[in-house]
Amino acid sequence: MIYFDNSATTKPYTEVLDAFVKVSSDYYGNPSSLHQAGGQAEKLLSQARSQTAKLLGVKSSEIVFTSGGTEGNNLAIKGTALAHKGRGKHIITTTIEHASVHNAVKQLEESGFEVTYVPVNAAGQVSSADIKKAIRKDTILVSVIHINNEVGSVQPIWEIGQMLQGFPKILFHVDHVQGAGKLPLDLYDCGIDLCTISGHKFHGLKGTGALFIREGVNISPLLSGGDQEGRKRGGTENVAGMVAMAKALRMSLDLQDKKSAHLKQILGTIRAGLEILPEVTIHTPVHSAAPHILNFSIEGLKAEVFVHALEQKGIYVSTTSACSSKRHAPSKTLLAMGVPARLAESAIRVSLSYDNRLEEAEILLKAVSDTAIQLGEVIK
Amino acid sequence: MIYFDNSATTKPYTEVLDAFVKVSSDYYGNPSSLHQAGGQAEKLLSQARSQTAKLLGVKSSEIVFTSGGTEGNNLAIKGTALAHKGRGKHIITTTIEHASVHNAVKQLEESGFEVTYVPVNAAGQVSSADIKKAIRKDTILVSVIHINNEVGSVQPIWEIGQMLQGFPKILFHVDHVQGAGKLPLDLYDCGIDLCTISGHKFHGLKGTGALFIREGVNISPLLSGGDQEGRKRGGTENVAGMVAMAKALRMSLDLQDKKSAHLKQILGTIRAGLEILPEVTIHTPVHSAAPHILNFSIEGLKAEVFVHALEQKGIYVSTTSACSSKRHAPSKTLLAMGVPARLAESAIRVSLSYDNRLEEAEILLKAVSDTAIQLGEVIK
Repeated sequence: MIYFDNSATTKPYTEVLDAFVKVSSDYYGNPSSLHQAGGQAEKLLSQARSQTAKLLGVKSSEIVFTSGGTEGNNLAIKGTALAHKGRGKHIITTTIEHASVHNAVKQLEESGFEVTYVPVNAAGQVSSADIKKAIRKDTILVSVIHINNEVGSVQPIWEIGQMLQGFPKILFHVDHVQGAGKLPLDLYDCGIDLCTISGHKFHGLKGTGALFIREGVNISPLLSGGDQEGRKRGGTENVAGMVAMAKALRMSLDLQDKKSAHLKQILGTIRAGLEILPEVTIHTPVHSAAPHILNFSIEGLKAEVFVHALEQKGIYVSTTSACSSKRHAPSKTLLAMGVPARLAESAIRVSLSYDNRLEEAEILLKAVSDTAIQLGEVIK
Repeated sequence: MIYFDNSATTKPYTEVLDAFVKVSSDYYGNPSSLHQAGGQAEKLLSQARSQTAKLLGVKSSEIVFTSGGTEGNNLAIKGTALAHKGRGKHIITTTIEHASVHNAVKQLEESGFEVTYVPVNAAGQVSSADIKKAIRKDTILVSVIHINNEVGSVQPIWEIGQMLQGFPKILFHVDHVQGAGKLPLDLYDCGIDLCTISGHKFHGLKGTGALFIREGVNISPLLSGGDQEGRKRGGTENVAGMVAMAKALRMSLDLQDKKSAHLKQILGTIRAGLEILPEVTIHTPVHSAAPHILNFSIEGLKAEVFVHALEQKGIYVSTTSACSSKRHAPSKTLLAMGVPARLAESAIRVSLSYDNRLEEAEILLKAVSDTAIQLGEVIK
């Protein structure tokens, strides 16, 4: 089996799962309990928090653990909306956000908020200047994805952050779910106020995540409850999950240092191989692109059919984002980039992890070529 | 070590953890992915859902998986508020709810909702008649805990549900977090619309839970995102966690059938032993009480001091609910029952699981007696 669907989810590292089991069985106390079993759990949670913070280059007190990327994005956006609605009800985002950002702001629109969706260029990139133009007196939040999950285009987070320094009351949220462990992002330097990561996208476990909330930034909780997570997120902490996530993040960042070139080589091989196939259109931009995502179409071939054809050859890829793949609708991101619906309907996403090997790229290329010819004959 | 803090959290069953590891390592696909790895994960998720539904006596389509009790309670309450605010902005609850219910409605008060907190009697029980009196034309929700987490008083859920049959537009939410696997609750028969359970309270894993949403009941999502969970809760599903929770629920309900008498015997032994100590006041009512929770005070002894003294003897108990234990504030529930603050400050909660043994009750009683005498000498 060749797994090229790492932007949907990744295989947890063995060490990560081992840590989860160890904590779950030996340190199962509730971190809020006053006795030793609680104290041990709290200590582990605190270590996971400081490790996560250190790896992200921020303070422990700025990390709120969540159940994943969707919760992080919702907490950042709705938490800001709730806390700052007295000051303004305008939010700026882009046309290529993940469903958890897009649908969070859509839901706020129903409650009287106004949202500006800033368009992207043909390369799937938004410009800082366009975001600046959208700013109003009542703007409270700008939310931009770091690496788009469907095509892998990288957004100019630093430029947007610098521009937003001129608007100190506007909070800046970045969905870093696809970026964590793949592309460095300096949260302080980029002027980011809120930043979402998700454990299972970097070989941690599903149901784990974190939201960075910069010191001094006030947002309301989405899950009200006990005093956990600085009163920003109630509920008994998933201690084992967070220890596992911190470990997965450390391992991924180690690999980011050591294997970035390797990842680029694999993706470069796939791109080069696809470029010479006349049937193929590559949607992922050449510059400012993620090191692990490549999106392409073979015109006339339905994406679902193609996914299943590759699956027959033991290769797992995806259509659009996993969260939306069952709708069989063309990728929102591709349409926003101006790709015709007909072509967008054929889009395939290949997404790598550091576990993939160069040989797998060659196997994929042969399989794509064979499948294109085979299916091409059928639809002629 | 004797663990008597099972209402804070429980030790995951070995079989539960094994199932989690198996699914996490062998079936790590994203259930939304179209390929086989996704399909297998989706099948497991679907099995976990139908198993959970069957165990709760409801339909699969009525189960929404969550990250735990706090999320379930928040989703039920805020989801109802968001979806039904056009019809009314009045919510009824009690004075003895868990922090995740109490603080969720408190937060709604800040957004223009009105909340009636119906008081309880000296036994920690609310009456259906009092709830009925609180109903207004604009009431949209009644939220009542099944088994109070601090003293173990059981609320008249069936009576409230029957009474609410006369008000078909009012939704009925029950926080069943302490009840699941300990005390049967017929969700349909009780006329319940929304019901919360939490995996780690019955030997499942932290970060797992479910909300029952009766067919036809409309609530808004709290975590907007992809199409998961019938669009009621976005985010990549924690497949392994939900498989583990379904297994934990089955095992707990099996034990509920087989070991209820055993649990009652242990709790009965503790109660009888404490009743003969003159320093002890028992707060948990004799009738309509949980089979696994006993709350008592030794006047004049600070609860924290007592917890730590018992810990020295290898026995883990708690002060109030774990979520609030670090505030060192007297139990909200005890104050609501009319227990004087001075006595409430000394309250200790002992909470059992089916793993506890009768000998442990005897050891606890001796330890309580010794500690009471020992500390009593000091404070004289």
